[in-house]
Amino acid sequence: MAIAQLTPAERDAALAALPQWSLRTDGLAITRDFRFRNFSEAWGFMSRVALLAEAQDHHPEWSNVYNRVSITLTTHDAGGLSGRDVKLAEAVDTL
Amino acid sequence: MAIAQLTPAERDAALAALPQWSLRTDGLAITRDFRFRNFSEAWGFMSRVALLAEAQDHHPEWSNVYNRVSITLTTHDAGGLSGRDVKLAEAVDTL
Repeated sequence: MAIAQLTPAERDAALAALPQWSLRTDGLAITRDFRFRNFSEAWGFMSRVALLAEAQDHHPEWSNVYNRVSITLTTHDAGGLSGRDVKLAEAVDTL
Repeated sequence: MAIAQLTPAERDAALAALPQWSLRTDGLAITRDFRFRNFSEAWGFMSRVALLAEAQDHHPEWSNVYNRVSITLTTHDAGGLSGRDVKLAEAVDTL
């Protein structure tokens, strides 16, 4: 089932409400980088995000190098940003 | 403390013993890509690798997109591949 991509106006409003996230240069994803004290803390954070992702059935594209975690959110079924990305970003920001 | 980089001969021997890993084009890291049935399985695998990494105090550079996991191993303190990468790769292969 196709998921609706955010309109430019919706996207701008979402980004304004998610000041710690950046729009990827192609406009199809949002990204946020995190830094922790060590791998243990980074992994603890990732574990919490993994639970959120499964609960929302929407999964990040992400990478980890020791204490750093980079998260990219996009919705393949929408060909870009959707409300699912906004919802997951909001949840991540509450951690 | 600087860690010894593998000699070319040691590197070749290690790669021969790790047929599922590839040498990165710059010769300074080894990589392996994994594919699972779903995110839950991918995450379970990553959790086991995380425990290995902490136990060995040597951590991967890795990324995950849903059911796919890509692992890169290199040793920054050696400026390339070291015995630590080989040891972690061997442990990952036993999972």
